[in-house]
Amino acid sequence: MSCPLCDTSGGTLLWEDDFCRVVRADEPDYPGFLRVILNAHAREMSDLSPGDQQALMRVVFAAEAALRAVMAPDKVNLASLGNVVPHLHWHVIPRFANDPHFPNPVWGEKKRDTPRAAPADLDAQLAAALNRRLARVRETG
Amino acid sequence: MSCPLCDTSGGTLLWEDDFCRVVRADEPDYPGFLRVILNAHAREMSDLSPGDQQALMRVVFAAEAALRAVMAPDKVNLASLGNVVPHLHWHVIPRFANDPHFPNPVWGEKKRDTPRAAPADLDAQLAAALNRRLARVRETG
Repeated sequence: MSCPLCDTSGGTLLWEDDFCRVVRADEPDYPGFLRVILNAHAREMSDLSPGDQQALMRVVFAAEAALRAVMAPDKVNLASLGNVVPHLHWHVIPRFANDPHFPNPVWGEKKRDTPRAAPADLDAQLAAALNRRLARVRETG
Repeated sequence: MSCPLCDTSGGTLLWEDDFCRVVRADEPDYPGFLRVILNAHAREMSDLSPGDQQALMRVVFAAEAALRAVMAPDKVNLASLGNVVPHLHWHVIPRFANDPHFPNPVWGEKKRDTPRAAPADLDAQLAAALNRRLARVRETG
């Protein structure tokens, strides 16, 4: 069966290795919305070995740390849902107190219109922040 | 400042140790909706040490596995949001293709009314499944 996360990158590629990738999603209301996508087609975190679970979450938490360093959000939201596309992917979403849905989840009721301008070099900044964190993890881990 | 997850259990307690606890949330549409709550008051996963991140996720994935064993959901949803209560807690939600919001997130638009009856001994079954998984992790980890 065709799977969009097997067939396409799923967004603008910022970091990857053989195991997983980090992309920026095309979400105009949420410029720094990242997704961490397992390269293999698996459905649930509990389908992975403990080592693979840990490897994937290390990248999710590196993505969170990169977003905090680059964008200083008021909160970060993490979610693995997969009801529509059951191929493991984590949403890593920088949230701001004046963003369109805050304090609701981005999937909830919209509260206001507050388009957020992304810095022109946001992708480059996030890619650099990811590379720093994931290189460091590899060196010391 | 008062925090509801520092001041109360946050639900029906099913498992706990010194570090975190698993509770069943009072969500009538979602009988097996679990929350894994860090006992300490911390805001973001990236505020924890790598060892504490791993320890918390081990319990989250055990909760997912317990739900799958007891309820056989069509999908499990995992999320750490904290926009309203910025004290680390993970939602671990068993989803069914005919549940009220599927395939939307439980925070999204409701699609239908399908009250789901919980087995009378659901808490006992989930607590037993959690104890088996978390005891085993401790023995071999």
